[in-house]
Amino acid sequence: MNEVLKNIQAHKSIRHFKKQEVEEHKLNAILEAATRASSSGNMQAYSIIVTRDPEMKKKMYKAHFSQEMYLEASLFLTFCADFRRMRSWLNINDAPMNFDNPMSFMISAIDAVLAAQTAALAAESLGLGLCYMGTTLASALEIGPILKCPKNVVPVVGFVLGYPDEKPKHRDRLPLESIVHQETYYEQTPEEIELTYKEKAKEGMKRYLSHPELASAIKASKVKNLAQVYTQIKYTRESHLKYSKDLIDYLREQNFLSAF
Amino acid sequence: MNEVLKNIQAHKSIRHFKKQEVEEHKLNAILEAATRASSSGNMQAYSIIVTRDPEMKKKMYKAHFSQEMYLEASLFLTFCADFRRMRSWLNINDAPMNFDNPMSFMISAIDAVLAAQTAALAAESLGLGLCYMGTTLASALEIGPILKCPKNVVPVVGFVLGYPDEKPKHRDRLPLESIVHQETYYEQTPEEIELTYKEKAKEGMKRYLSHPELASAIKASKVKNLAQVYTQIKYTRESHLKYSKDLIDYLREQNFLSAF
Repeated sequence: MNEVLKNIQAHKSIRHFKKQEVEEHKLNAILEAATRASSSGNMQAYSIIVTRDPEMKKKMYKAHFSQEMYLEASLFLTFCADFRRMRSWLNINDAPMNFDNPMSFMISAIDAVLAAQTAALAAESLGLGLCYMGTTLASALEIGPILKCPKNVVPVVGFVLGYPDEKPKHRDRLPLESIVHQETYYEQTPEEIELTYKEKAKEGMKRYLSHPELASAIKASKVKNLAQVYTQIKYTRESHLKYSKDLIDYLREQNFLSAF
Repeated sequence: MNEVLKNIQAHKSIRHFKKQEVEEHKLNAILEAATRASSSGNMQAYSIIVTRDPEMKKKMYKAHFSQEMYLEASLFLTFCADFRRMRSWLNINDAPMNFDNPMSFMISAIDAVLAAQTAALAAESLGLGLCYMGTTLASALEIGPILKCPKNVVPVVGFVLGYPDEKPKHRDRLPLESIVHQETYYEQTPEEIELTYKEKAKEGMKRYLSHPELASAIKASKVKNLAQVYTQIKYTRESHLKYSKDLIDYLREQNFLSAF
């Protein structure tokens, strides 16, 4: 196995960090790496915002649902869908500004994620650890104003970054054959689905029960299995409907739904 | 620079391929690598569909706007947002099915892109070349049915993959300081924007003029600069509005907008 594959296979999300800052030259190498990622039409319709300032970290920590790892980490990188820069350039060149619609948002969001994952793998190759925080998009409506994102800029993904202070085990993954389809989508039978999720159902429940807050929520509830933990406790219909509404409101505010 | 950073820095999109198939063990290593990527709540809400069959390639080629590279490449990987598998598992475990809303679509689309970029970097480390095709999402309404995607599955990104038969130069990138922001978003002045896009304006125009189809469209039009090529020829308002409408229709059809 080559070094690139080894680096990919070694990935584990890191949630506990040493009190050691990420060196400037490493951060720079990571950001440089991110910009080599593919982007739609080579437009690079994304921006990366670095959060290190203690006051900014406090504000961002709250918007990220007060997850401790945010404060432990040396810094946070927010990858934003960004058609602002491009539109400014179009504007000064008498070109139609466009890129204010849902497809443009998706294109720039994809660009942001391609850059983020390239940065993540670069960071891990330098001995750093990270954990993506889904709160970046769920709280975009709050995070955008903290980061002073102008119109046509929307936070999409982000991760805490620092020197690992834990050595977690490899997380479970679904069997490859349940993820990969040949030629057309193969829909598994209920029996195959059970088998696909068998290890996850066991390992996942163990994992959530070891997390004090989730464990007490699980005990206080009547959930009987991991599937129910996922949608009765962790990702409830109400929470996802709220995030969806917030996202749509924010996309409208940020000028990505102009004709919709 | 370590091997991982070198591999990232060496990236170039490849559009011409040798008549040499990707070996099964390499494809497997790439797909295995993809599954190590982070995913929201470790739900792995994505699927990867492999297209190699000549009949399937012909159909997909058309849906991908008949771009030659589709036929030249050994195979195509489509990364789909997929909450179908998860919802089947929820269903057989008497858990609320959820994940049928815009935020769920975004979560699964992000999962798909994280897996795709991990696969892309793994592939390049094995001597293969690839080019993402934005038509995957722009034509999702057509591609989804070809791939027989059931509800809650939507093609998001994909790339042609094979052995490179060209050695393109490194593509231009915007200066790092225009992409990276410290603490809050810094909006460039018009003068700074001009400088940011200076090299791109030159290199990009040269590149497009070397592409026969685009060159004749450019000559037949009255466009005066690269910015105008982008939004008067390449990404017109009409095309993006159509893709946006198609996408929204398809998301509704695929049960990702149930409450919207």
